[in-house]
Amino acid sequence: MTVGPLGFGRTTMKYNKVVIFGVGLIGGSFALALRRAGVVGEVVGFGRSQATLEQARQLGIIDRIGQDVAADVSDADLVLLATPVGQMAALMAQIAPHLGVYTRVTDGGSTKGDVVAAAYANMGDRASQFVPAHPIAGAEQSGAAAAKADLYIGKKVVLTPLPENSPEAIARVRHAWELCGAVVSSLTAQQHDEVFAAVSHLPHLLSFALVHDLAQRDNRDQLLSFAASGFRDFTRIAASSPEMWRDICIANRDALLGELASYMQELDVIHQALAAGDANQLQEIFSLAREVRGNWTQQ
Amino acid sequence: MTVGPLGFGRTTMKYNKVVIFGVGLIGGSFALALRRAGVVGEVVGFGRSQATLEQARQLGIIDRIGQDVAADVSDADLVLLATPVGQMAALMAQIAPHLGVYTRVTDGGSTKGDVVAAAYANMGDRASQFVPAHPIAGAEQSGAAAAKADLYIGKKVVLTPLPENSPEAIARVRHAWELCGAVVSSLTAQQHDEVFAAVSHLPHLLSFALVHDLAQRDNRDQLLSFAASGFRDFTRIAASSPEMWRDICIANRDALLGELASYMQELDVIHQALAAGDANQLQEIFSLAREVRGNWTQQ
Repeated sequence: MTVGPLGFGRTTMKYNKVVIFGVGLIGGSFALALRRAGVVGEVVGFGRSQATLEQARQLGIIDRIGQDVAADVSDADLVLLATPVGQMAALMAQIAPHLGVYTRVTDGGSTKGDVVAAAYANMGDRASQFVPAHPIAGAEQSGAAAAKADLYIGKKVVLTPLPENSPEAIARVRHAWELCGAVVSSLTAQQHDEVFAAVSHLPHLLSFALVHDLAQRDNRDQLLSFAASGFRDFTRIAASSPEMWRDICIANRDALLGELASYMQELDVIHQALAAGDANQLQEIFSLAREVRGNWTQQ
Repeated sequence: MTVGPLGFGRTTMKYNKVVIFGVGLIGGSFALALRRAGVVGEVVGFGRSQATLEQARQLGIIDRIGQDVAADVSDADLVLLATPVGQMAALMAQIAPHLGVYTRVTDGGSTKGDVVAAAYANMGDRASQFVPAHPIAGAEQSGAAAAKADLYIGKKVVLTPLPENSPEAIARVRHAWELCGAVVSSLTAQQHDEVFAAVSHLPHLLSFALVHDLAQRDNRDQLLSFAASGFRDFTRIAASSPEMWRDICIANRDALLGELASYMQELDVIHQALAAGDANQLQEIFSLAREVRGNWTQQ
């Protein structure tokens, strides 16, 4: 069942067939959200774990477990790549030759420069059908059981469209994310990776580093027994997936190295101020931070 | 009305007169908690702001605003120093000559080495009546209006008794904090300051540093617009009082410099691993951090 491009504008688009690769938190929630919006015909799921796929089917996330990638992507309206980023290059190479003319592809990866490079390297001309996306809706939870229809409501999704994308392709992918309830904006892949190195990847690295530093101490149990709510919040993200964050750090290495170097310079300045007993400088640093943090509200 | 030492053990002690210096979150909540426990006769408040004292009286935190420090501490059972630590030395010098024989003194300061040094320098022999304490119940809120009777329930309070303290003095102060609902433990002042440099003071410094680093960027508004829940939790403590944290950092400078240097070495290791693209080393670091953070529960 191949469908032509639907008008865009005020009309709600329909997606007669949606194919999800990776039916975990990101992919499963995308499927549930589109279902709830009432715009999806059939949802087909692929993945590496048959048990997870079966669970997703039983939870009503997907209608059926895909058996033939080539056949299922050939007449899909929309394909979501929601696997770990490290698996996307091979997946792109696998699907590209079989994509229907009107099939649009998007992804849920947290880094974009590497995903875009993988698309160019593995999709050939079909890269024009791929509109990269980063849904800012990560959580410590993962897996199909964690998927929920309202995960994306009010959350940001950043598209990093390619110059090869048609306005229609971008609109269809944007609309799908908007139907999930997300607030969609666009950046270049490089802008995206620089921004998220600063506000997400670096804080994760710093939080892992603090816990790792304490974890190596002989008296770590005593230390942790006196840790309180400040420590709890500062280190919440140190409970994130080591594999996922390893991949993100490697994928966004250049931007993250720049942010880490900048932060280490900041600590040098603070170390010098503290060593000199310069209370005024410390107060100036803390005051600007408090002002900016106090005025910030999560959007 | 001078009262003699009450028996300790299973009997609930009474505190016929409690004097609070500084009727904000810490001092006000202490007063409210002892009141709720039904063990207090009169609560007298002193402070630098007449408006705050009046507010505390109207809120039922104190019975009356003190007029004469010497007279009020001479027959008090218990005195709490809940001012900023920077004001304690002068306060100790002011009250020491007038303390009754059975008057016990405690405090609510977040650092202990400096408070103990101030006690020795300003209280003379009367330092034996002072049992230092650190209630681990800070919050971003402050002021009398934020005080609440249940602030200390289930929270840790660390005593750092002096060799000069009698067992009876320690027991009376411990019992007062326990009546507030706190879980009381003891460390030496040096142990205390080393532990809290690691699990509290350093994380605050690191959180202030991250926000300060971003605050200086030309594109800070764009950066902050994409910050999400990881950033929110990591930087929550950067909204803390700059004055209070300036004082804590200066007061606990030596231990904090040691922790900061250790953390900067940790970042050096991570920077090298990232620059070398050493995914395995990053994963090892993140995995140990996740394991330790995942097993930690706030007590």
